[in-house]
Amino acid sequence: MTQATAEILSQGEELVTGEIADTNAAWLSQALIGLGFDVTRHTAVGDRLEALIDLLREISRRADLCLCTGGLGPTCDDLTAEAVSQAFGCPLVMDETALSQIEAWFRRMNRDMPSVNRKQALLPTDATRLDNQWGTAPGFSVMVGRCRFFFMPGVPSEMKAIYQTTIRPELRRLYALAPPHRVVLRTLGLGESTLQELLNPIPLPDGTSLGFRAGGAENQVKLTFPPSLPESSIDDTLDSIKQALGDAIYAITRNGQGPKSLTEVISQAMAANNARLYLVETLSGGNMATRCFGFDWLAGATLLTHPVQHLTAFNTPPDATQEASIAQWAESIRIRETVDVILVQTGDFTLATLNDENTRLEIMTVVAGRPGIMTDRRLISGNRQRKLDSATTHGLNLLRRFLLTEPFAR
Amino acid sequence: MTQATAEILSQGEELVTGEIADTNAAWLSQALIGLGFDVTRHTAVGDRLEALIDLLREISRRADLCLCTGGLGPTCDDLTAEAVSQAFGCPLVMDETALSQIEAWFRRMNRDMPSVNRKQALLPTDATRLDNQWGTAPGFSVMVGRCRFFFMPGVPSEMKAIYQTTIRPELRRLYALAPPHRVVLRTLGLGESTLQELLNPIPLPDGTSLGFRAGGAENQVKLTFPPSLPESSIDDTLDSIKQALGDAIYAITRNGQGPKSLTEVISQAMAANNARLYLVETLSGGNMATRCFGFDWLAGATLLTHPVQHLTAFNTPPDATQEASIAQWAESIRIRETVDVILVQTGDFTLATLNDENTRLEIMTVVAGRPGIMTDRRLISGNRQRKLDSATTHGLNLLRRFLLTEPFAR
Repeated sequence: MTQATAEILSQGEELVTGEIADTNAAWLSQALIGLGFDVTRHTAVGDRLEALIDLLREISRRADLCLCTGGLGPTCDDLTAEAVSQAFGCPLVMDETALSQIEAWFRRMNRDMPSVNRKQALLPTDATRLDNQWGTAPGFSVMVGRCRFFFMPGVPSEMKAIYQTTIRPELRRLYALAPPHRVVLRTLGLGESTLQELLNPIPLPDGTSLGFRAGGAENQVKLTFPPSLPESSIDDTLDSIKQALGDAIYAITRNGQGPKSLTEVISQAMAANNARLYLVETLSGGNMATRCFGFDWLAGATLLTHPVQHLTAFNTPPDATQEASIAQWAESIRIRETVDVILVQTGDFTLATLNDENTRLEIMTVVAGRPGIMTDRRLISGNRQRKLDSATTHGLNLLRRFLLTEPFAR
Repeated sequence: MTQATAEILSQGEELVTGEIADTNAAWLSQALIGLGFDVTRHTAVGDRLEALIDLLREISRRADLCLCTGGLGPTCDDLTAEAVSQAFGCPLVMDETALSQIEAWFRRMNRDMPSVNRKQALLPTDATRLDNQWGTAPGFSVMVGRCRFFFMPGVPSEMKAIYQTTIRPELRRLYALAPPHRVVLRTLGLGESTLQELLNPIPLPDGTSLGFRAGGAENQVKLTFPPSLPESSIDDTLDSIKQALGDAIYAITRNGQGPKSLTEVISQAMAANNARLYLVETLSGGNMATRCFGFDWLAGATLLTHPVQHLTAFNTPPDATQEASIAQWAESIRIRETVDVILVQTGDFTLATLNDENTRLEIMTVVAGRPGIMTDRRLISGNRQRKLDSATTHGLNLLRRFLLTEPFAR
């Protein structure tokens, strides 16, 4: 088939109680989308037999494929095999191979096999066993009507290992799918609705879907092009979008390839120029440093918990309202720290105005280095965390724009 | 009613494609369980009208309550209101109050309101508006048969704000449920299995459930006591647990009351003593500063991207292998920065060993102040992020323990 719908079913009380977020479902979805499946639904249910039986029947009528995790353990609250057998009328039978594999696993661990683990070798009639070398619970697959189910353990490491070694090759063999072309444009400084308005006039190739994802200062534009579409017409579309959004776009990911974060983009430019950076942070609360830490181009950072004009170490402290004054001070730090690039961010704030979500603050960011100086002034708003995030993003974004100028630009 | 079932419905292409895990659903589940609801299902669907309509109808037949997030934005892929109107036959009508709130929001942001945002003020007939002071999208609620639906934006900060200010009080009023007593003990330094072993001998009252949540350096012990259980027997149980775990417990949250983070615990002690702190970070990458930023007791912070013994500003730089040497240097910074408490963390590392997930690093943390000096040495392991998190937690935990000593302890 050329188009197939898939669902993800996750079982576990820890999911419906919110103890953990369902990261298995997210991981499996990305894997299936990469193969060209159309993932339509995620469902999580607790350890309840009736709910599980209903759900399995629902999905068997709805989807072509269902990947299921959890409920394969040895304890009484592990109900998946039982639910499958009742939902689809296929009694459980002891799988001798599975049993010997479980016994072997305990031997490898130098432990006696508790009798409860025999339960894990009971599989629905006509199920295909999925060997698990990484734990005790074997997975299995069953075909019900149009829908093929694969059942895996909930432990992420075992789930991923079984998917990659057994299920993924099987899916490629069974479903001849053409994956769509997925493009993500990461933008900064434009609101979601502004993006939409700028993109409205741009014609999209038939069958192309346009989506947005809002995330604080960063907004993503997501395009999904049909598999059949020639690269050239994707290029054309992207060119018109780049023209419309300009340098608000900081990164483009095409079918998963390309930088995925602002730090990655900055890191490439810093490394390419063998340049080093020093940070003086205020409203970003040390978060710029945390984002850049671990790269050899970060020379160090200082966090000031007050505006720079309150610096006592100077006879004439810099004047945060005067860009020239801040720039001069920034340059002196750049020389003192013997780095190529200095980023200084300041603003007129007190802890009271910082923490008051109804007070907006003006911040100024200055980046100085060989190409000269760039400054950015803007208002940030929201509670402390939101202000901190905005200050971080706008600070790093000015650094990115600085690195696009000579002599850094490549 | 004394027992009510609830479901969580999350809408967004980014969820079914697996770009993000559904943390909103986990957060809302914990909130509902705290109120005494029985959460039976999580479902996530993409931006597809038909799927959404089917799902809304399913849930209206299945649950007493459904909390929904996402799909309230201004763009073409935001379909929630339209789906509700079609699923339950309640045409969309312009809510003038919502419209003026959205216009007011844009005025506050000093931005013109794009016309697309008018869409966000279209609510299903007979829906009750849920005001959103934190963003442009108002939420709304509708009652369908036995099921009450609440629709919120997907942006976590807006969702949480609307839930806490509007929905939570409403749920308490509408559903007279008997919530269980929930106690969370936050511990540092003990592994999950060690915790389990220490707690095994402790008898728990009938109907009490014991759970664990592992999270890097922090491990939580979660107890759920039946609603009917007298406070006194909860107190007795907690006393025996405190005895078993000692000062590995840094905070206890009882039915949501009490400090929920290490920073909160530290902040209380610093404020009570009117003391100020300066941080010198290395392996924590500026993250300690970020965690403490916004409190008046943080005087400032420096991030060194190399071990302290490589400091060039000294004729005889401190010797990271000698606690006395680090302590002396720390004290000199404390005096220079005129603070009451100084925290210095260092270790022998290079960016190569920091970033190599197979290399363990020894870190030393020194906290100095009026009570004297406390030091902590330990190995941290894992990839960069994991090492950064461990260094941050162990550093702040030493600060906490320091603040428990005279003269800080109260």
